[in-house]
Amino acid sequence: MQATVLYGARDVRFEDVAEPTILEPTDAIIRLPVTCICGSDLWPYRGISVFPAATPMGHEYCGFVEEVGRDVRSLKPGQFVIGSFFASDNTCPHCHYGYQTSCQHATPVGGAQAPRLRVPLADGTLVATRDGPDAEHVPSLLALSDVMGTGWFAADAANVKPGTTVVVVGDGAVGLLGVLSAKQMGARRIIVMSRHEPRQRLAREFGATDIVTERGDEGIERIKQLTKGVGADSVLECVGTQEAMMQAIESTRPGGSVGYVGVPHGVSLDGQPLFFSHVRLHGGPAPVRRYLPQLIDLVFAGTINPGKVFDLVLPLDQVAEGYRAMDERRAIKTLLRP
Amino acid sequence: MQATVLYGARDVRFEDVAEPTILEPTDAIIRLPVTCICGSDLWPYRGISVFPAATPMGHEYCGFVEEVGRDVRSLKPGQFVIGSFFASDNTCPHCHYGYQTSCQHATPVGGAQAPRLRVPLADGTLVATRDGPDAEHVPSLLALSDVMGTGWFAADAANVKPGTTVVVVGDGAVGLLGVLSAKQMGARRIIVMSRHEPRQRLAREFGATDIVTERGDEGIERIKQLTKGVGADSVLECVGTQEAMMQAIESTRPGGSVGYVGVPHGVSLDGQPLFFSHVRLHGGPAPVRRYLPQLIDLVFAGTINPGKVFDLVLPLDQVAEGYRAMDERRAIKTLLRP
Repeated sequence: MQATVLYGARDVRFEDVAEPTILEPTDAIIRLPVTCICGSDLWPYRGISVFPAATPMGHEYCGFVEEVGRDVRSLKPGQFVIGSFFASDNTCPHCHYGYQTSCQHATPVGGAQAPRLRVPLADGTLVATRDGPDAEHVPSLLALSDVMGTGWFAADAANVKPGTTVVVVGDGAVGLLGVLSAKQMGARRIIVMSRHEPRQRLAREFGATDIVTERGDEGIERIKQLTKGVGADSVLECVGTQEAMMQAIESTRPGGSVGYVGVPHGVSLDGQPLFFSHVRLHGGPAPVRRYLPQLIDLVFAGTINPGKVFDLVLPLDQVAEGYRAMDERRAIKTLLRP
Repeated sequence: MQATVLYGARDVRFEDVAEPTILEPTDAIIRLPVTCICGSDLWPYRGISVFPAATPMGHEYCGFVEEVGRDVRSLKPGQFVIGSFFASDNTCPHCHYGYQTSCQHATPVGGAQAPRLRVPLADGTLVATRDGPDAEHVPSLLALSDVMGTGWFAADAANVKPGTTVVVVGDGAVGLLGVLSAKQMGARRIIVMSRHEPRQRLAREFGATDIVTERGDEGIERIKQLTKGVGADSVLECVGTQEAMMQAIESTRPGGSVGYVGVPHGVSLDGQPLFFSHVRLHGGPAPVRRYLPQLIDLVFAGTINPGKVFDLVLPLDQVAEGYRAMDERRAIKTLLRP
């Protein structure tokens, strides 16, 4: 088959690779009717993250089970499944507590920008839908695999509750779906930091009540103005830079919470101001597996439509253009059709 | 009157100072039957914290109201009161949320190692007991003013719940009272990091089930062994150094919580390992005022006896020896009698 491989900064190739096969008896092979590019793929694409030469790209996936290893008990060929970007056994103590991305046997899933994918620990990792989905739901189900689950975790980690005031730092797909999540959780006011008009529009559609275009100290000042000097109850940090993290912490009221899901790049927190901020911090790689059953139900019920973040659709063989469009912020998120 | 003044590293003097007087109409003057030295007083005593020349020392207090300003509504002379080391109005939004140490009008209280003390914002800051306390309860009520309230906040911030496994980093008065707090909150297992035999004894008396004498990586390894490789549900960081903070974070299971109350000195957190640890962080200067009514009841009922942390009693004029004894770890905490 042909799939997506990153060779170096901005060097994405679509080329012949080996077909995935069952390597462990707990594996499954799934066929991907759609796949996509993640904002976090831009870190290696831009040369900011170090990565091995010739890295197969893609970690978001849903699709049809084609084959399962001999130890797989809960799945059979033909089922439609969704999994997280981390494979997990879903039985260890960390999984039991709902932190499947810290599973004692966690394994990253890679190579999903392809027509087929091997998923390790299939019983623990994959959640099957009751019925095969309608075509219109497929992009939303794909979004659950990472960006929607991550936005949901950000809101959950930030303790969003009915009636609260929420700030979202970051207007990428995760930030926008953080808005959608906060709305679902009953937030009364949702303030989004964004300077990008199409993203502001989608944020409003997902439930944002206010847009703040200022950044840094001016952005913090604006949040303080909007919250009568108090700060927000919950702040979702969906970027991963030092500026975004400080923006998040300093926009939160004492006793409020920051849920941070942007993979930190060069972030360092000075203990003393953090201490005196009285802010709660929780985050990390989103335990998407925990939320999948609930989020699948919300998609099937038509309550949420996270697939709206895909504003560019390309054939898979044009994946390099998909990266370029996201890198240049011409697209929020690219859907690829094998 | 004579009171305690710090002139420089290890230069504590007991000398003539002006009697406190009502400066603002919201002030109260209280007479202190006992007072004490805090572990946090050792930071400036050791020259680690910068402080103004000739600093009046002491921020823990309870005693009898002698005089109130004309705007004080809820207190009258003769009442026995306890307050926090931060004065607060108890009416602003931050106070409303229970973060009185972040009160919009917060003012540090200082000069309590003295026979008398001026307390600002008396209505918001001071909590009166229903009756005058028995002499035996007075040291415990004094402990509520800071160390007991701080240990309680550490346990609360670390989400200690019935049946959980708790680690306490630090065997000073706050750490020991963190043990007592975790026990009150129903922790099943309480592991204390301590190398000091008298403190280990008091920790056991307060409810510790295990003592770990190793530190650093060995200490973390030992906690992992004791928790079957999982880590603790809740960790109380009661020191404030980089080593203690890392010990706390790395001893916590993914999804578990660190409650940190040691004032950070030189602590810096690297964003990426913190992210992948999946740990919840909450802490800061303890909002003692929030807990005072509940803790006063527990002392009067004889349920808790936090005054046991005072293992050295001196006349106030020997305050310098009290500091030396704590600095040299000959005493956990020094009670002073004016």
